Amino acid sequence: MEFEPILYHPIGLIRTPFKGQARVPFQPWMGKDIEGVIELDPKFKDGLKDLEGFSHIYVIFHMHLIKDYSLMVTPAWDSKEHGLFTTRSPRRPNPIGLSLVRIKRVIFDEAKIEILDVDMIDKSPLLDIKPYLPFFNPFEDVRVGWFEHCKDKILKKMFEK
Amino acid sequence: MEFEPILYHPIGLIRTPFKGQARVPFQPWMGKDIEGVIELDPKFKDGLKDLEGFSHIYVIFHMHLIKDYSLMVTPAWDSKEHGLFTTRSPRRPNPIGLSLVRIKRVIFDEAKIEILDVDMIDKSPLLDIKPYLPFFNPFEDVRVGWFEHCKDKILKKMFEK
Repeated sequence: MEFEPILYHPIGLIRTPFKGQARVPFQPWMGKDIEGVIELDPKFKDGLKDLEGFSHIYVIFHMHLIKDYSLMVTPAWDSKEHGLFTTRSPRRPNPIGLSLVRIKRVIFDEAKIEILDVDMIDKSPLLDIKPYLPFFNPFEDVRVGWFEHCKDKILKKMFEK
Repeated sequence: MEFEPILYHPIGLIRTPFKGQARVPFQPWMGKDIEGVIELDPKFKDGLKDLEGFSHIYVIFHMHLIKDYSLMVTPAWDSKEHGLFTTRSPRRPNPIGLSLVRIKRVIFDEAKIEILDVDMIDKSPLLDIKPYLPFFNPFEDVRVGWFEHCKDKILKKMFEK
């Protein structure tokens, strides 16, 4: 298959306490309550209007330190290999990150959003922000494959903190 | 703010019944039960291993027909303007689509996934696939801003079909 490459221009920067690849919390419970700041390019400021009414957003960003990918992955909380697209491994053909974060405060005049539960590396380039609308999403009757037997372990860790 | 542009290479193509921009279902209930096929580049086939155990995936794709953006948007189900990043409008600085779809069947040998609830235009370039793990996500104590007063209208439409 041959495709045209796609060019995106970051719309801002994500500031977090995670300075290098080694310290990134691949485990979801490790991002819990960690604070970060989205510094939006001021020219996109108007796009933040009314965002203060939302508690959560999806943040789509570029995982700028990732240089390769692996189609088979042994996740941190399992001992078996699984196909990449069933995992949250950052080593993907297109290293696009998708994180659901909590909004702490929208500082409209500075084009900034203070966020919680960050799991991205400091200075990750921001690509997009989308509203989190859980009432559109299924919650029951969802099958999660090999995560099923790790689910309780992960949730326990999340609520331990 | 000045950033390096980011280059991605599509990993496949999404086939859907929506042939042009005009027919895209911007309303979430319009994609319900609509079938599509993800045609993954066969070189990434191994990344699909174990996917048949999952009922849903996030599909991240390029909205290839979008040529501009608007920072203020009047959504289909509201009469007021809102900031772009509180909406699902496709006219974004980086036209990255994020759809949650149901898996109908994984055809591993052909590197294909038959999916349901598609809302993308035919031949949208695929950028990434991620597992949907709702037990990580909050469902209660979520505030959805201006969507709050449209929520019931939208849900009613979704279940009417």
